[in-house]
Amino acid sequence: MINMNMRLICTSCGKDHPIDEPHQRCEDCNEPLEVEHVRGKIKDSEIVWERYSDFYSFINQKLINELSLGEGNTPVVFSKRLSHELGNEIYLKDETQNPTWSFKDRGTLIGVIRAIQLGYQRIGTVSTGNMAASVSAYGARAGLKTAILVRPDIPEEKIYPIVVYGSNLIEVEAKFGMIYRKSLEIGKKAGIYFINSDDPFRVEGYKTIGFEIAEWISKNGNLDYVVVPTGSGGLLRGILKAFLELKSSGLVSEIPKFIAVQAEGCSPIAKAYEKGVDYIEEVEEPKTIAGAIADPLPPSGNEVLRKLKKHGMAMAVSDREILEAQRMLSKSGIFVQPASAATIAAIRRLSDGYTDYTDKRFLCILTGAGIKVVSAVKEMLKLESFNIQKTDLEELKTTLESV
Amino acid sequence: MINMNMRLICTSCGKDHPIDEPHQRCEDCNEPLEVEHVRGKIKDSEIVWERYSDFYSFINQKLINELSLGEGNTPVVFSKRLSHELGNEIYLKDETQNPTWSFKDRGTLIGVIRAIQLGYQRIGTVSTGNMAASVSAYGARAGLKTAILVRPDIPEEKIYPIVVYGSNLIEVEAKFGMIYRKSLEIGKKAGIYFINSDDPFRVEGYKTIGFEIAEWISKNGNLDYVVVPTGSGGLLRGILKAFLELKSSGLVSEIPKFIAVQAEGCSPIAKAYEKGVDYIEEVEEPKTIAGAIADPLPPSGNEVLRKLKKHGMAMAVSDREILEAQRMLSKSGIFVQPASAATIAAIRRLSDGYTDYTDKRFLCILTGAGIKVVSAVKEMLKLESFNIQKTDLEELKTTLESV
Repeated sequence: MINMNMRLICTSCGKDHPIDEPHQRCEDCNEPLEVEHVRGKIKDSEIVWERYSDFYSFINQKLINELSLGEGNTPVVFSKRLSHELGNEIYLKDETQNPTWSFKDRGTLIGVIRAIQLGYQRIGTVSTGNMAASVSAYGARAGLKTAILVRPDIPEEKIYPIVVYGSNLIEVEAKFGMIYRKSLEIGKKAGIYFINSDDPFRVEGYKTIGFEIAEWISKNGNLDYVVVPTGSGGLLRGILKAFLELKSSGLVSEIPKFIAVQAEGCSPIAKAYEKGVDYIEEVEEPKTIAGAIADPLPPSGNEVLRKLKKHGMAMAVSDREILEAQRMLSKSGIFVQPASAATIAAIRRLSDGYTDYTDKRFLCILTGAGIKVVSAVKEMLKLESFNIQKTDLEELKTTLESV
Repeated sequence: MINMNMRLICTSCGKDHPIDEPHQRCEDCNEPLEVEHVRGKIKDSEIVWERYSDFYSFINQKLINELSLGEGNTPVVFSKRLSHELGNEIYLKDETQNPTWSFKDRGTLIGVIRAIQLGYQRIGTVSTGNMAASVSAYGARAGLKTAILVRPDIPEEKIYPIVVYGSNLIEVEAKFGMIYRKSLEIGKKAGIYFINSDDPFRVEGYKTIGFEIAEWISKNGNLDYVVVPTGSGGLLRGILKAFLELKSSGLVSEIPKFIAVQAEGCSPIAKAYEKGVDYIEEVEEPKTIAGAIADPLPPSGNEVLRKLKKHGMAMAVSDREILEAQRMLSKSGIFVQPASAATIAAIRRLSDGYTDYTDKRFLCILTGAGIKVVSAVKEMLKLESFNIQKTDLEELKTTLESV
């Protein structure tokens, strides 16, 4: 049975909205909504959605079984090399091992199911990257018409992994923040459910990352910090909500601190955090290699600021630091997107500058696969040349001996 | 404790070789070796290598814990749409959800550990695709010098995902089969352990796919066919060996039939199978979009033929069929490489032509992520155009209404 008596609560003013209507932001103050907190137990199952089903009582489990592509259960990898280099214990939660190779899939599944539960036959999103591919994939799996809104400057390499699933790619001549707002407004009238970056049900899907981390902690000991690449703010909200729900369920006693990491070229949350103000300001000209976290007007920005007051901090790192961190990660065997590498750049900066940040236990969310943004590798080449040689069969032995 | 009393057995003449020496092919007949069959139990653990540790008694578990990047535990996804379209039950084992987004990682981990157990400090492989990236990643993680041998015609898009890990890319002016042979020969002298496509320990790593499928069968019922994209033959050998070991351990009673799928433009195994001969012939000019299975002289080709006599069949499909199947898969939410799509192309041809192939249960191994070969998507475009539109904010509502 699906529990439709739950409420969507405004994260700012607390006003509640019925869960069986397509509310996404507060009617009164336009801040993001969230599903009211639930309590539950973790069950014994190898399938994520069965293990945590108590925390998804408002979701039709049959639809999960039908539409899931096998999200989650991603590994936590300890990096001895990075731990040594950074003077801290570094654990990496590898979200690239998901159906479309980013964490987005966990949220997209739950978002798509919300759309179906509300009776929609068409869905959409506003994204050029991980989320666009993810929504296209699940839209295809569910047999829904899918509209992906992008800006016209989308590079060709990003188009194919979206349209391959059969979705409709629509290039809109407007600012990103404006497309986000318009999509929700028009979507309601046109009967298209837009599963954008901080849709309340998308955020619910991200809770599974928090549940998995909590289970990992119960076996491997406490973490000091969870480091989260932060664009819209939806991911951080989801992970933290999982911990809060587990705490009120009596299943965890401590909650790790969260570090929201942005890129200096687009860091509205980190800027507001540093200034100590309560509201973010739109970034006029975002410019960073970390496209996946370059949200100039994060729709959950203010809510992230509210949450960080108690639960952590925000900071920004430069593109150069991001590229260096990406290279460090790949030389330790893990090839991620620039946005994911921002986590390591942040720890590196913290451990350089403050003695507080040594011998701590960090877990970084590696949000998306490096293979998706091959162009960034070319940027890395500018920092350090790669090892490429030419030879023939006669010279092969000599060449190999010099490796 | 590591069991070093085991033997490596020639798959053709049965001659045995000690496991603690770097043998890869039979000293007498040059056919591939395999680790002698072991018996064991499946343990209760969420970690693949702990669950199946009985079947890896010759591997140092401490090295697995240190070097693993979280391989395996990949989902089996049921496709309602493909099942309907093909008149059979279609299950998809999604190996793209691995650390470098292909099945190779399972074998690379065990191969790298063999190299370390034998005292090597340098490793290598011969590959331009999935295996090259995988060996580069694990070489980096293990802190080993890593040489990747490729042909000089390697496209640029394939170079970055290899060298990003810090490995040495060496372009060798020679035929692929010749580079394979020379690498083993020179490697031994130069102290470089080449973990090529059918290295006996690499094949051991692939057993985990078979174990996972067997566990899936125990919960979901028997399969009629396991469909395996086949290049060198190492993958099919590994999956089948798992079933044979489980059978002799009394853990499974039936073994599904195997279908080895190749691309028509490079199908030495399928050709020999059709002719009913015991030995493969080298393909002079391989030409197919399915690069990941285009091995003109598969080192395990003869052994695959021997195994298929009892356990299944081989067939080849055209590039056009492969691209159509890739499109079918992506329109059902799963974006794979052409080589992986060859499995669906094979079932499609079988179910078209023979009434024997209806209402059967097929499981396809989806070997690698589509995102790795974006150029193939451009080929798909030639079959069917994608949905791309341009608009502005004023027209957005009208555009969306037409989706």
